[in-house]
Amino acid sequence: MFDYKLLAALAAVVEQAGFERAAAVLGLSQSAVSQRIKLLEARVGQPVLLRGVPPRPTELGQRLLNHVQQVRLLERDLQGQVPTLDENRLPERLRIALNADSLATWWAEAVAPFCTEHAVLLDHVVEDQAVGLKRMRAGEVAGCVCAAERPLAGARSQYLGAMRYRALASPAFQRRYLGSQPSAETLARAPAIVFGPDDRLQHRYMASIGGSDGFIHHLCPSSEGFVRMLQSGLGWGLVPQLQVRGELARGELVDVLSGPPIDVPLYWHHWRNGGALLDELTRHLLRCAGRWLVTE
Amino acid sequence: MFDYKLLAALAAVVEQAGFERAAAVLGLSQSAVSQRIKLLEARVGQPVLLRGVPPRPTELGQRLLNHVQQVRLLERDLQGQVPTLDENRLPERLRIALNADSLATWWAEAVAPFCTEHAVLLDHVVEDQAVGLKRMRAGEVAGCVCAAERPLAGARSQYLGAMRYRALASPAFQRRYLGSQPSAETLARAPAIVFGPDDRLQHRYMASIGGSDGFIHHLCPSSEGFVRMLQSGLGWGLVPQLQVRGELARGELVDVLSGPPIDVPLYWHHWRNGGALLDELTRHLLRCAGRWLVTE
Repeated sequence: MFDYKLLAALAAVVEQAGFERAAAVLGLSQSAVSQRIKLLEARVGQPVLLRGVPPRPTELGQRLLNHVQQVRLLERDLQGQVPTLDENRLPERLRIALNADSLATWWAEAVAPFCTEHAVLLDHVVEDQAVGLKRMRAGEVAGCVCAAERPLAGARSQYLGAMRYRALASPAFQRRYLGSQPSAETLARAPAIVFGPDDRLQHRYMASIGGSDGFIHHLCPSSEGFVRMLQSGLGWGLVPQLQVRGELARGELVDVLSGPPIDVPLYWHHWRNGGALLDELTRHLLRCAGRWLVTE
Repeated sequence: MFDYKLLAALAAVVEQAGFERAAAVLGLSQSAVSQRIKLLEARVGQPVLLRGVPPRPTELGQRLLNHVQQVRLLERDLQGQVPTLDENRLPERLRIALNADSLATWWAEAVAPFCTEHAVLLDHVVEDQAVGLKRMRAGEVAGCVCAAERPLAGARSQYLGAMRYRALASPAFQRRYLGSQPSAETLARAPAIVFGPDDRLQHRYMASIGGSDGFIHHLCPSSEGFVRMLQSGLGWGLVPQLQVRGELARGELVDVLSGPPIDVPLYWHHWRNGGALLDELTRHLLRCAGRWLVTE
């Protein structure tokens, strides 16, 4: 069998984003952690870590991490039956990648009963909905909520529902930039707010109303900051309806045009052989996601 | 003088996080952008970009970017006096690094009047308050809001005020984990929520009340997700008071212990020779930040 002391050292360095913190978590000296990584590299005959800040796994390192993640989940199942196997048993951790807007809206409420019942701690990794799967491919996470449907080899993908986005702005912004007859042309000349370089929602919306692709925009990589910028009248942008129910009800944000909303489908990706806990989370999410996501 | 066509290509590749998008922004073919980067590297005799996904500047590349950022700000001043100099004049962009909690709370409202008056678009880069300065050192941003006081060479640092954090949880969490006599010991056994590996606020709070450093925690790198996790009863954690005024007023979140809040000082860092626009933003921030930050 593999030497799991070595693999655990690799996992700790990547998860803790550094040798010093990895050493603290493992209760070892930093040089002991270093030794274990070197020994692992000697065994597999290739580097497993790129020594940067933070250290990143090589392709081989990622395959090993993927394996560690799956072994951990299987161990947890066994511990349910043989509770004394691991003397230092801590609550189980699940590492999940998801899009920022899910984390900012429905996710916590959805997973709370699951976490409480099973005493699970969550490590969240925020990734744009278009690129979240790369964390799974890298073996860093057990599951992933993202807009891509196609599962990775060894994983399953299940539809959760869609996140409904509306193009919103403050009433003052609306008056100032769009006037009494808002149109795709006037909107194209008003500043937009875009989450980051991977966020194409505003562009999709513009295309859907026949507007131009070349609009000016602020960049704001924060779900809550995005809403604060809309409220302050700095621009217009697409926001999950779930996130701004209060602002909409109070009239602090309004639709910029009467066009249809944009629905972004969300899929739950998880390893097939991820063990009972991950299967339980899957069942739980499929059962309850419809409370927050659009499923018709 | 330098060849600014080459430097602009470098800036676009880094700012747009890729050659393809850089080409689109510059209105060039991707191979033309590539050619310019290669020519720049031939001139300076060293690589300026690490070709990864996304491409990152080398140390020399970062120094060049820093220079581009400053030249752009100076150009803007000149354009105020000679408006026809740049025929394709777009609204000016300022790139700012700041901590996620500022972006989630006071920042948008504070900068809105400045952006509207000067027709400025903002590119926000979120960095933990302890490490935001590295973006300035890298020449990627014109200014930075962070907890470090000491300015970089060529820059100034000015005190804005402090962000007040309170250790909060939901009433249900409070009852379940802390019972009728909450103490540092009971709190240490309850799950915490931590923003990310660099977030030491919960540890500081524990130390301030005499608790242990080894508490269990979820990780949630999203300001809004953090509050949603608190509300769902998944853990306790330190939140900017500004961000949860509604939740506190409605009793959806309560103080876990009667201990004092934690104040995190915030400083505004900006280049000394950053031009009139950056100076104006500095004056504006110093004038108004006290409306949201604690300054006594």
